[in-house]
Amino acid sequence: MADDENTGLRVPERTIPIPAHLSPAARGFLSVHGSPGGWPALGDVAGWKARLAAMDAMMTERFVPKTPVPCAATERNDGGVLSYDLMPEGLDPGDRRLFYDMHGGALVMGGGEVCKARAQGMAAKVGARVVSVDYRMPPDHPYPASLDDCLTVYRALLNERDPAEIIVGGGSAGGNLAAALILRARDEGLPLPAGLVLLSPELDLTESGDTFHTNAGIDPMGTLMLPNLLYAGGADLADPYLSPLFGDFTKGFPPTLLTSGTRDLFLSNTVRMHRALRDAGIDAELHVLEAAVHGNFGGGTPEESSLDRDVRLFCKAHWGKA
Amino acid sequence: MADDENTGLRVPERTIPIPAHLSPAARGFLSVHGSPGGWPALGDVAGWKARLAAMDAMMTERFVPKTPVPCAATERNDGGVLSYDLMPEGLDPGDRRLFYDMHGGALVMGGGEVCKARAQGMAAKVGARVVSVDYRMPPDHPYPASLDDCLTVYRALLNERDPAEIIVGGGSAGGNLAAALILRARDEGLPLPAGLVLLSPELDLTESGDTFHTNAGIDPMGTLMLPNLLYAGGADLADPYLSPLFGDFTKGFPPTLLTSGTRDLFLSNTVRMHRALRDAGIDAELHVLEAAVHGNFGGGTPEESSLDRDVRLFCKAHWGKA
Repeated sequence: MADDENTGLRVPERTIPIPAHLSPAARGFLSVHGSPGGWPALGDVAGWKARLAAMDAMMTERFVPKTPVPCAATERNDGGVLSYDLMPEGLDPGDRRLFYDMHGGALVMGGGEVCKARAQGMAAKVGARVVSVDYRMPPDHPYPASLDDCLTVYRALLNERDPAEIIVGGGSAGGNLAAALILRARDEGLPLPAGLVLLSPELDLTESGDTFHTNAGIDPMGTLMLPNLLYAGGADLADPYLSPLFGDFTKGFPPTLLTSGTRDLFLSNTVRMHRALRDAGIDAELHVLEAAVHGNFGGGTPEESSLDRDVRLFCKAHWGKA
Repeated sequence: MADDENTGLRVPERTIPIPAHLSPAARGFLSVHGSPGGWPALGDVAGWKARLAAMDAMMTERFVPKTPVPCAATERNDGGVLSYDLMPEGLDPGDRRLFYDMHGGALVMGGGEVCKARAQGMAAKVGARVVSVDYRMPPDHPYPASLDDCLTVYRALLNERDPAEIIVGGGSAGGNLAAALILRARDEGLPLPAGLVLLSPELDLTESGDTFHTNAGIDPMGTLMLPNLLYAGGADLADPYLSPLFGDFTKGFPPTLLTSGTRDLFLSNTVRMHRALRDAGIDAELHVLEAAVHGNFGGGTPEESSLDRDVRLFCKAHWGKA
């Protein structure tokens, strides 16, 4: 096999227009969406804490609503692990369906009020009760603390309800933890949920997929290798509990919905997982949004409403069928 | 809305490696796959004929087997329209399932022996009888001659069998004609087939999708605007019979499987059609191959076998259900 350095494809500098057929909201998002910038050096704990606090403040400004939303929020505590329990207004109290959500944020941020606010958005999206775990994160708590916390709450939920009543999911880093949760739950002999929802999932912390190259500079999100290493804390990035893409799916896995965008750095993560699941005989469906970057268009566009509808349809079709 | 020229994204020159996780065959294909080169000027009929003859000779060399394949081929003639009828060896003669195939070739080539040979490949892929229409093409026969021929054979097939026994499909330009055939059949009051298979389909002759830009220079296939204009012969490229992506799918459309690759120039065509069908409430499934260009990896790789399996599963699930 020829050497990659020699056979790699040289692509000249160019300008990529914003597609005219997108909604005005999606076009507006693509025209102003900037890069999040770089990360501190790996050993600079104080630098990481300052940077992550600043990013969380930005996410709070962006995601936490200024006025109350029609979704009651209470807190759970399962063996010291905090999570938010969101009950959309008007939901039948006898409705047993639950979406168990892992929040995003590059495995290093997005907890607390941001986690709660985004879980309220997820509850509105799926039209069901949501529990979202406020898992521990680096730099103080590297792997496996986050995944341990996700498992702790999953075990507690299984004590309260039938696994068929639970759908597990998450976006970005939350997709990593949701898929890793499935692998660990299966390996530990726990029952699996009725379904899995992976929204532009960070399934490969080694970043080996082709779109990490082809969409570099097109998706404003750059490499997350530094947060990945901070999260791993010395563990092997290619371990399936850290990079679920490399798991063995022939030993049992729930029906899975996956979403991405054509400009998404994680498009390869998504389509590779879809193929791996199909190859293992798992029911898996793929949805890819035209011109969408990681995180799509920031939410609220007609394009994203179309995707939300398919997430709802998937959940509705699978709840009760584990 | 800001002007695209000003808000477009500037992407610097870079080298894109061949992914190490691909099969050796797929890596080999990506390392040598070259660009097909340019096209003659639109009015240069002799130039087009010479160029298309040369391309067809190349396709004959590539696709037509040197030794007989286990698939009996006969010819049909329906009102002057030639098509090939392929019966894979060992198929039960009472098996009524039929795949009606439109061949690829940028709407300007790929007929004759190439059409027959590739239809034999399709018969092996779907494990069923295939009829492939050797439709008329430009420069002598611009739109609507090709589509008329596809309809003529479809009408003849409907005289012989139940529409539920027919699945329609095609790759690239064949995907254009297959989808346009559905729209015209519906508009003319004909019954629809049990399913539609669109393999990296050329659904938008205006080339408005984002991946015509993001994957330019990454997929060795360049723009096909000149063949598109030659095909249209003055007709509106955005007419749904020429660009089925712009059709109205709420008035009836069969269950559809769509495939593409992350490096494919037609990825936007594919995912936009998938979303449009889902938005119209049509059963549609999407499969995207990691790092695959238009035409995937030239055939025969493990990656493509995985895709072929899903095409077979789709056909098997839908035959008999129109």
